[in-house]
Amino acid sequence: MCGTDGCLVKCSSAPCATPENDIKDTFTTINLDHGDPIMYEPYWRKIGNKCGITFNGDDSLSYFANGKSLCWFMESKLEEQIKRLHNIVGNAIVDDYYIVVGTGSSQLMQAALYALSPTDQLEPVSVVSATPFYSKSLGHTLKYNAYPEVTDFVRSGLHKWAGDARTFEKSGSYIEFITSPNNPDGVIREPVVNGDQGKLIYDLAYYWPQYTAITIPANHDVMLFTISKCTGHAGSRIGWALVKDKEVARKMTKFMEISTIGVCKEAQLRAAKILKVVSDSCLDPKMENFFEYSRSLMTNRWQRLRQVVMASDFFVLQKYPLQYCLFTKDFCEAHPAFAWLICKGGEEEDCQKLLKEHKIHTRSGRRFGSDLRTVRVSMLSRDEDFNIFLERLMAIRGPTN
Amino acid sequence: MCGTDGCLVKCSSAPCATPENDIKDTFTTINLDHGDPIMYEPYWRKIGNKCGITFNGDDSLSYFANGKSLCWFMESKLEEQIKRLHNIVGNAIVDDYYIVVGTGSSQLMQAALYALSPTDQLEPVSVVSATPFYSKSLGHTLKYNAYPEVTDFVRSGLHKWAGDARTFEKSGSYIEFITSPNNPDGVIREPVVNGDQGKLIYDLAYYWPQYTAITIPANHDVMLFTISKCTGHAGSRIGWALVKDKEVARKMTKFMEISTIGVCKEAQLRAAKILKVVSDSCLDPKMENFFEYSRSLMTNRWQRLRQVVMASDFFVLQKYPLQYCLFTKDFCEAHPAFAWLICKGGEEEDCQKLLKEHKIHTRSGRRFGSDLRTVRVSMLSRDEDFNIFLERLMAIRGPTN
Repeated sequence: MCGTDGCLVKCSSAPCATPENDIKDTFTTINLDHGDPIMYEPYWRKIGNKCGITFNGDDSLSYFANGKSLCWFMESKLEEQIKRLHNIVGNAIVDDYYIVVGTGSSQLMQAALYALSPTDQLEPVSVVSATPFYSKSLGHTLKYNAYPEVTDFVRSGLHKWAGDARTFEKSGSYIEFITSPNNPDGVIREPVVNGDQGKLIYDLAYYWPQYTAITIPANHDVMLFTISKCTGHAGSRIGWALVKDKEVARKMTKFMEISTIGVCKEAQLRAAKILKVVSDSCLDPKMENFFEYSRSLMTNRWQRLRQVVMASDFFVLQKYPLQYCLFTKDFCEAHPAFAWLICKGGEEEDCQKLLKEHKIHTRSGRRFGSDLRTVRVSMLSRDEDFNIFLERLMAIRGPTN
Repeated sequence: MCGTDGCLVKCSSAPCATPENDIKDTFTTINLDHGDPIMYEPYWRKIGNKCGITFNGDDSLSYFANGKSLCWFMESKLEEQIKRLHNIVGNAIVDDYYIVVGTGSSQLMQAALYALSPTDQLEPVSVVSATPFYSKSLGHTLKYNAYPEVTDFVRSGLHKWAGDARTFEKSGSYIEFITSPNNPDGVIREPVVNGDQGKLIYDLAYYWPQYTAITIPANHDVMLFTISKCTGHAGSRIGWALVKDKEVARKMTKFMEISTIGVCKEAQLRAAKILKVVSDSCLDPKMENFFEYSRSLMTNRWQRLRQVVMASDFFVLQKYPLQYCLFTKDFCEAHPAFAWLICKGGEEEDCQKLLKEHKIHTRSGRRFGSDLRTVRVSMLSRDEDFNIFLERLMAIRGPTN
């Protein structure tokens, strides 16, 4: 058991995050709307100062980094550790790729749109993604979908959101976002439009062993990653793109230059250290392997959630196939960062509203271009909140409950 | 003397930056094109670990900061130190202002454009600035003007660059950038258009005592600052806006949220520490006052440059009036971060080309909306480069030289 009365579902050997589990009272709504990845905190607490980095007054003054990369503001230590980690995990090819660092992968999405948009056309290029697609809402009062919003927020004349890739029929050039595993539903994705003038941006934020089987080293033209979902260091705002074409990498770098004159050096150097520890942990048997730890944590949460949902007459969960993982060298099921929870009721059923009434704040499927019956639930919260979520979910018997 | 044969012009008591002065050979072009502010490095080296900050593995994981600010990703320690420093220096009013933190002031410029652009008009709002205006070029091959480029790079439908504020005659709404002291020429600026539907963005990056007299605490609607030019920590990419109107601050925060989901926590926390040391140094007589140090450095460089230019028949420098500084409590001349150097020749004289032939890389006045006779020269380089610059400038006798 988790060591608290509030932990109703049996725990496996996975670690329990917080000593102060279940101190929240029954009146507090728990927020599983955003995907703030703080669940790996206990691992990093154990690692502690082994992963510490100190900046003195005279460190990192310059706009420039020391490397000789095309991406002139990228720290060479970070470049080295990004390549090393991908080689160890086997989730992406890095040889002959250019790396562009960004202030999180959000900025890299915009940089990729900027780099891939044709400049010789009167009309902005259409940008699509298959529903359900990536959505974000972090501010307390702000609500929007990420791909549409990122594409259109300054009403760019270069690109324009054109909705669901499945219903996109315009001929000519277009850009398609492919999130794989997908946010919100964790499904492995392929391009949908398959036109001959399409440019593809692969958002691979969740293509790490704790969330899904690593089935192949990805080798697409433009691939986006972020440290937020890989290690949980969302506050650092570090993302990177692996880019096959030199000119695209150059244009993405230019975007970053105009937009923010590069990327914060402290976060880059810290990210290099964190990625180094993750890689070391995969190779050094004396260390606790980060991906084994995080996979065990996710597996445990998913097992417990499936138990609760199976016992319910009212909810179902997305299913995932068993796949062979090249990293773990075993067959495994996906354990996505978000649960895509579906109410069994009719089309009018508002799952988000129902859960809200039971003090669980989730994000409606509507926000992802899907329907009201579904919600996205973050699986990355602290143990305390996850335990309360299961308790409250168990108590729901239906909309009339 | 600076301790090297290469230092031809007498030094005052101002510190000499690098022990390895003048190790560059005569074939190397020195780069005074960009304004990388590394000249304060010796101060920060002396401060050393008094200003050190350490991040352990489990620090700053979350997207969210702990503060209760409207700007939800801003660290409250940073907010506190920003307010404290402005109160000590007296260069801006902070009471009743909202603070929005950004990834450098470049991102805040875009955020301010986003927040101030009318959303109910078919045409994008005109954005202007009086020539010569802010320009940047950091990448090795990229050349562009910053205000025009930042305004237009994604061809926004919200705002559009409309050139020199002095020749702007369109009626209706507009946005004017006012950089004061101005980059490139160090002149104190006022709004130029003065229409009744104008929104003003004050870029006060250089309104610090080492560059200019602090004549009044600024209290404009939107004011932008950056740590880069204040303390020299350009690599951290930390800027902030002081914003009078809550709705504008909220929209700027939204821009930052969509663009990069906030601002790197490590840099924010380090910036808080650095600003604290700067404030402490102004109050604690046992510490070396940062602004006295940096003002002495700038004064010395300007004195030496003026000596060289006075001895030349071919160059003149922008002049600045003596003004009473509320911070130093004395009359002082401006010592801008850039020298605006003018060739005396005719309109066809290409000053940038001439200096390039003498292995001094500067930025042409053309790039700031001005003419070929002028160049902008960074005054913020390391001592080594500044000394070589003066040597080479002394050797120039004219375009036929």
